[in-house]
Amino acid sequence: MRFTQAFEDRLNDGFSVEFRHRLIFTRDAASPDNPVIESVLGIDQNNDDHQPGMILAIDSNVARAWPDLAERIGQRCAGDNMPELREVMEVPGGEIAKNSTEVVDAVHASIDRNRIDRRSWVLVIGGGAVIDAVGYASSTAHRGVRLLRMPTTVLGQLDAAIGVKNGINRFGKKNFVGAFDVPRGVICDEDLLSTLDDQDWRTGFSEAVKIACLRDRAFLDEIVNRSEGIRNRDADAARPVIHRCAELHLHHITRGGDPFERQEARPLDFGHWAAHRLEAMSNWEIRHGDAVSIGIALDTVYSKLCGLLEESACTRVLDTLRGLDLPIHHDQLNDSATLLAGLQEFREHLGGRLTVTLLKDIGDAVDVHEMDDQLILRAINELNEEH
Amino acid sequence: MRFTQAFEDRLNDGFSVEFRHRLIFTRDAASPDNPVIESVLGIDQNNDDHQPGMILAIDSNVARAWPDLAERIGQRCAGDNMPELREVMEVPGGEIAKNSTEVVDAVHASIDRNRIDRRSWVLVIGGGAVIDAVGYASSTAHRGVRLLRMPTTVLGQLDAAIGVKNGINRFGKKNFVGAFDVPRGVICDEDLLSTLDDQDWRTGFSEAVKIACLRDRAFLDEIVNRSEGIRNRDADAARPVIHRCAELHLHHITRGGDPFERQEARPLDFGHWAAHRLEAMSNWEIRHGDAVSIGIALDTVYSKLCGLLEESACTRVLDTLRGLDLPIHHDQLNDSATLLAGLQEFREHLGGRLTVTLLKDIGDAVDVHEMDDQLILRAINELNEEH
Repeated sequence: MRFTQAFEDRLNDGFSVEFRHRLIFTRDAASPDNPVIESVLGIDQNNDDHQPGMILAIDSNVARAWPDLAERIGQRCAGDNMPELREVMEVPGGEIAKNSTEVVDAVHASIDRNRIDRRSWVLVIGGGAVIDAVGYASSTAHRGVRLLRMPTTVLGQLDAAIGVKNGINRFGKKNFVGAFDVPRGVICDEDLLSTLDDQDWRTGFSEAVKIACLRDRAFLDEIVNRSEGIRNRDADAARPVIHRCAELHLHHITRGGDPFERQEARPLDFGHWAAHRLEAMSNWEIRHGDAVSIGIALDTVYSKLCGLLEESACTRVLDTLRGLDLPIHHDQLNDSATLLAGLQEFREHLGGRLTVTLLKDIGDAVDVHEMDDQLILRAINELNEEH
Repeated sequence: MRFTQAFEDRLNDGFSVEFRHRLIFTRDAASPDNPVIESVLGIDQNNDDHQPGMILAIDSNVARAWPDLAERIGQRCAGDNMPELREVMEVPGGEIAKNSTEVVDAVHASIDRNRIDRRSWVLVIGGGAVIDAVGYASSTAHRGVRLLRMPTTVLGQLDAAIGVKNGINRFGKKNFVGAFDVPRGVICDEDLLSTLDDQDWRTGFSEAVKIACLRDRAFLDEIVNRSEGIRNRDADAARPVIHRCAELHLHHITRGGDPFERQEARPLDFGHWAAHRLEAMSNWEIRHGDAVSIGIALDTVYSKLCGLLEESACTRVLDTLRGLDLPIHHDQLNDSATLLAGLQEFREHLGGRLTVTLLKDIGDAVDVHEMDDQLILRAINELNEEH
């Protein structure tokens, strides 16, 4: 026995856990000619005596626009080495999916009823909120069953569905409850974007503007060059923007050194303190992408007012947002006391000191640890006039 | 732009996440002379303008036995660089804490009410069930706030609280919902064991017998040598057994290569398929440690009956359990149809093929992928006669 009667014995041991992130862009994923779904779901099925199962949770908006999608996916799962599709459940689309535990409870019950085990699958097809809620359920059942995400919105394909987190809202706070979990795969089917209404189409591009502002000046130029095409819903114009944004986001997770956000800084959350707050203030009526656009505008003007950012760069960011028909203002901004309390909420969700990302230049970000209320009010006033 | 109009673009990127496991054995942790609590809670408090907070969730059984413990802990937190204790909540002790979402919901609400952020703390003091339920709440709030566990039972100190998982029961299934999460620290205060009743004291040692059977023949000999002392509640006799068991468990997690259980095998779950089932069948009246003891006995006899294990080794394991006053039988075993269905449930919770660990010798385990129902029934019959 190594241990004696010491007053204090310490064992202190480190370990690491490996993850793999698989992101695939394709078209008409459910087509019999498309091997993408098989390539993900067919992995690792080397157990002779165990047929894995699958449940499919589909966003009600997507099911309405693509009435035969679930059936076509089921046909893709009929082959050997594929999981058996045991239930298709519709989940209400939009933030409502995250505003109670209802969806999470229903998915847990389906996982139990259909004997979905850790080597079985949950396939979720839908917008960001549906993916977040269903993913939270799949990552907590049996401490994590396999998840395949098929995001159906621009926002989902270029940002939300690439992340390694999920969750639902509680106590009126966005994503108060959630988990870090890496999906087994993310399949982005471009064709599914074609049935989005114009507002859902354009709103997602605010995240592309965001990551360009933070990381890649040339990418912002590319977005500007393509904004007319994007406004006109030209898929060829939009595709490189969506893919590049997704790639930057993926690399942030896999190469950024902090995939599970244990540092104070949240470098991709530029503009998000105000965005999260505006969403809650509007009772989730402002779309997330629109709120992000307003948040970007606010923190860009703030960056200028506190002397970090040149006027011309600030103007270029605002023009880029407007060129994509994205909002830079909302009347809720003028309820400034409520808005400013969002800074404290943002700090709590991050933990530790307040850390807000601002711009020194396009493609060059900096973290600050305090915000000046008076300058925020001045930035709001500028946006009141600008818009 | 790197992306063109390819039908399929793939991004596939690996990454790893580092964790650290801190396990400390001590006595009278709440004493002003004991620096252990400060050494854990005082870490990483280098943010001038942010005072982290803490909530303390204490097992009602522990609060009754140690009425001034919470207050003494609060006094330890009064120093500089320590988190501010903002609420003490009592949690009902025993499996009831895990049988509904009530405890999880209450801890989430307290985390919200007390502005506990990711750099703030949840301290949980109690038995394994309380630690599991409170830990599940802390690992999902803000996708994980800091958790310090102080297990107060033998089972908690040598096994349960060392694990990197948590969860609650749903659908009548043990740990159906949960998460993998690494606590910031585990402090085992030996003095807290002194108020356990005799049944709660002895039940925990079944996990020590288990890990000795799997890993360390010399450790089984040590347990046998110390069993009279353990039966008599001699802390000096028990201490090396508790510490060595905890160490073997910790090394399994940090050095075993599969901390988050993504392989089929669950090497530490020897005897656990029957144990989990017996607990549910008895409506959680059989203590976990007692159920594990019966499960060890069953799978040891089964190992003998299927020709893996020598008769003498089998007898030595059963004698070791009996020498610790641990049960090797329960009438529920005779409801064999219900018991056998537990194999399927165990497979589902693990995922993939059925994988059950059996013994080839003491200290030498082997995984099998099927169990013969008739041999299980014969093993039950032997235990009917033995006990």
